[in-house]
Amino acid sequence: MAEELVLYSNPMSRGRIARWMLEEAGVPYSVEWLTFEGSIKAPDYLAVNPMGKVPAIRHGETIVTEAAAICAYMADAFPEAGLAPPTNRRGDYYRWLFFAAGPLETAVSLKAFGMEVPQERQRALGCGSYGTALDTLSFAVTRHPYIAGDTFTAADVYVGSHISWGLQFGSLEDRPEFRSYWDRLKDRPAHIKATTLDDEEMHRQLQAAKG
Amino acid sequence: MAEELVLYSNPMSRGRIARWMLEEAGVPYSVEWLTFEGSIKAPDYLAVNPMGKVPAIRHGETIVTEAAAICAYMADAFPEAGLAPPTNRRGDYYRWLFFAAGPLETAVSLKAFGMEVPQERQRALGCGSYGTALDTLSFAVTRHPYIAGDTFTAADVYVGSHISWGLQFGSLEDRPEFRSYWDRLKDRPAHIKATTLDDEEMHRQLQAAKG
Ligand SMILES: N[C@@H](CCC(=O)N[C@@H](CS)C(=O)NCC(=O)O)C(=O)O
Ligand SMILES: N[C@@H](CCC(=O)N[C@@H](CS)C(=O)NCC(=O)O)C(=O)O
Repeated sequence: MAEELVLYSNPMSRGRIARWMLEEAGVPYSVEWLTFEGSIKAPDYLAVNPMGKVPAIRHGETIVTEAAAICAYMADAFPEAGLAPPTNRRGDYYRWLFFAAGPLETAVSLKAFGMEVPQERQRALGCGSYGTALDTLSFAVTRHPYIAGDTFTAADVYVGSHISWGLQFGSLEDRPEFRSYWDRLKDRPAHIKATTLDDEEMHRQLQAAKG
Repeated sequence: MAEELVLYSNPMSRGRIARWMLEEAGVPYSVEWLTFEGSIKAPDYLAVNPMGKVPAIRHGETIVTEAAAICAYMADAFPEAGLAPPTNRRGDYYRWLFFAAGPLETAVSLKAFGMEVPQERQRALGCGSYGTALDTLSFAVTRHPYIAGDTFTAADVYVGSHISWGLQFGSLEDRPEFRSYWDRLKDRPAHIKATTLDDEEMHRQLQAAKG
């Protein structure tokens, strides 16, 4: 029997990345919704993720947190979906997953929050400057059709989500290479389905809040 | 014939993490030293890593940057070394690799640089607060002897390096669970060899600088 798969999420969060990945894997799962004001910091959920953050997944006995880790885990746990390169060809796959989860995410967030890294810190801080991180992202998305080569992988779910999010909210400079990379991803059925489901839940919650 | 393996590094950098991983894999490699003041920002090296940062490795035609990605890549490229769990049991492995490369690294760096995250940003910023990130690290290192289970993996090289570095430079709170985790790692022959080689190069460079 297949092991139970549960997504812990909030419809207005990085949980959308995890949902997209679950849909790409094409396996059944259920969702537990957490509220930012309440259940996300309650003992039950802190036992799942002591960070008190979403997303997380539980797959049988295994708990995985961190959106990028969920993408990498799901690709390996459900190999039939073909979402990870073979283990002897994972250079670009890991490179860009970790680049996006580390330097890119940090550079973009700090910039968005007006906490830019002073020049004298850029050597020691892993993300360097916002400009360099973005130039590196431009380099990454223009080498192959997909981030890890000629085929779509879990790394595209993660990097693509950063780009989509960044363009939508203006935290990422609008560059043609980001747009054309995202154009190759956005109409994937799994992305559309995941977005629709999360949007529906978001509207349900907004309606409920209005009373 | 085995493909050429080259480490791009500086002896006073995160390149030490990559060297430790290369030694754990037990395969031959050569080192190209980059200077922070010069060659690391020269066109030749920017073609390897547009971030102008070390470490990077080149393995045949494959280039990998990001210390954590290098750990994950090496473990998969050299499976004989047994440094990654089987692909159907990688929950903790990916979880803590990405946690350390993302939230932990960011929380610790921002704290060290006096750029602490204001309370109202902790929800949106992936790293939350320094305190929560450290409590999550405590949770991670006390669940099993090693970070991904009962055996040593590439994730221990990466997480262990963060802990060793943080304790040595005082950027990480000194907690008994960090010490005892690190005590399980520090005497590994590959770690001792890597540290010795990097220390030797560091002294060579310091001597040369004195003229
Ligand atoms: N590094 C984590 C970040 C997760 C994160 O920051 N999630 C936010 C929502 S997008 C959250 O749950 N915030 C709630 C809180 O910190 O209270 C990841 O990539 O999954
Ligand atoms: N996210 C990168 C960070 C690499 C990094 O920041 N390296 C520093 C040395 S520890 C560097 O090369 N700095 C040179 C510079 O930025 O000019 C990783 O984890 O490998």
